[in-house]
Amino acid sequence: MDKILDSSSILPLYHQLQEILRENIESGIWKPSDIIPSENQLMQEYNISRNTVKKAIENLVQDGILYRVQGKGTFVSRPKFEQSLIGFYSFSKVMKERGLSPMDVIENIEKKKAKPRIAKQLKINEEDYVFELKRIRYAQGEPVIFETSYIPEKYCPRLSHEKLERNSLYDLMQKEYGIFVTKAKETFEPILIKSYESRFLEVEEGFPALALDRIAFDAYEVPVEFCHSIVRGDRCRFYTELL
Amino acid sequence: MDKILDSSSILPLYHQLQEILRENIESGIWKPSDIIPSENQLMQEYNISRNTVKKAIENLVQDGILYRVQGKGTFVSRPKFEQSLIGFYSFSKVMKERGLSPMDVIENIEKKKAKPRIAKQLKINEEDYVFELKRIRYAQGEPVIFETSYIPEKYCPRLSHEKLERNSLYDLMQKEYGIFVTKAKETFEPILIKSYESRFLEVEEGFPALALDRIAFDAYEVPVEFCHSIVRGDRCRFYTELL
Repeated sequence: MDKILDSSSILPLYHQLQEILRENIESGIWKPSDIIPSENQLMQEYNISRNTVKKAIENLVQDGILYRVQGKGTFVSRPKFEQSLIGFYSFSKVMKERGLSPMDVIENIEKKKAKPRIAKQLKINEEDYVFELKRIRYAQGEPVIFETSYIPEKYCPRLSHEKLERNSLYDLMQKEYGIFVTKAKETFEPILIKSYESRFLEVEEGFPALALDRIAFDAYEVPVEFCHSIVRGDRCRFYTELL
Repeated sequence: MDKILDSSSILPLYHQLQEILRENIESGIWKPSDIIPSENQLMQEYNISRNTVKKAIENLVQDGILYRVQGKGTFVSRPKFEQSLIGFYSFSKVMKERGLSPMDVIENIEKKKAKPRIAKQLKINEEDYVFELKRIRYAQGEPVIFETSYIPEKYCPRLSHEKLERNSLYDLMQKEYGIFVTKAKETFEPILIKSYESRFLEVEEGFPALALDRIAFDAYEVPVEFCHSIVRGDRCRFYTELL
């Protein structure tokens, strides 16, 4: 391994170290749950300052590549959960197929008047009622998505916590309300975790996340659900194939 | 407009204010470049503390919804650039179609031995040479993507700054080297802007961004380019349609 950082490079030293550590992980030299060398070891090994080491490690922690355990050291994270953007988005189904034991916790369900922004997406009137459904979605015991769905009451009257405990939302729509979700449009953008969401996702405020808005349509192209999700960036990665 | 925040709600006050401000923008009450009320005005209007107002505004600034001008106030941002993930990804083409005058600046091009991680993606040997091409991509005069491409030398010998000034990379591959890029695989994840990239993208360290890895394949499914991009989250949004 090349242990010399290039101080004449346009790449700052912390960035060079960060890429070396990343390379060690991606090439499999360091495996998930392995402890990495201490700050002191890295300072000596590469002849750099503590600040440089700290910055490189902090960046990799925020990106979800490394994690710290108080009083023990810094470790290599498990690989991120991968989610395809091709084919219809179903969190529980994809996670089940991979044996990643998904679980949903319903945080709250409430009937409300639609706010203008929500009404516009769902093409309903602002006076119309919607169910606002907040769920936390887990994979292998880790909370990874905080999801808020809005479903027009007129399409799914008497939607309830009890009903949703027994069925996935889309299964319920199909079985109880005869609504077949056949298409969805998604927009997404990277954001920072806010303190409100950090509580549900058990992650620090300011960590990277993906904000994902989805409109689901039935077979007649009627929007039947608007869903706003916050996906943990330190635990999830997306992929797609472009032709 | 409802001016009362609900202090008994599980939603923190800053979050409620943030959503009201967001609603004003998305519903078009406030337009791009409009100044928003001052901190003092918002404090009085909603009967809340300065910290609550500051936190709501800071969150919207980081998400790219608002921007600050020193000594002048806080303004509504222009809408984000939208980029489809369906169909083949070509930044210049899409931006041109929308009249958003794209521009590329070549920061650096250098011949290097492939690092293990890059060699693996390109299915070449670690001893093989690649061109490392760093570019900054602009839309309407704003830097939005910082892109690092790796192209095996054996496929595109004598690739140079001059050649790339006159042609897009894929046009050049086609015209000069007979390589037709027909498919690409992308993975992406939200990250924070690091200080190294913040310089090129003219955005503060710690702002949200998308890290996008693309492998481009030719008609024979040979990987011909590996590209790592950092896309500004405060200026870009992605969309896709799922069937």
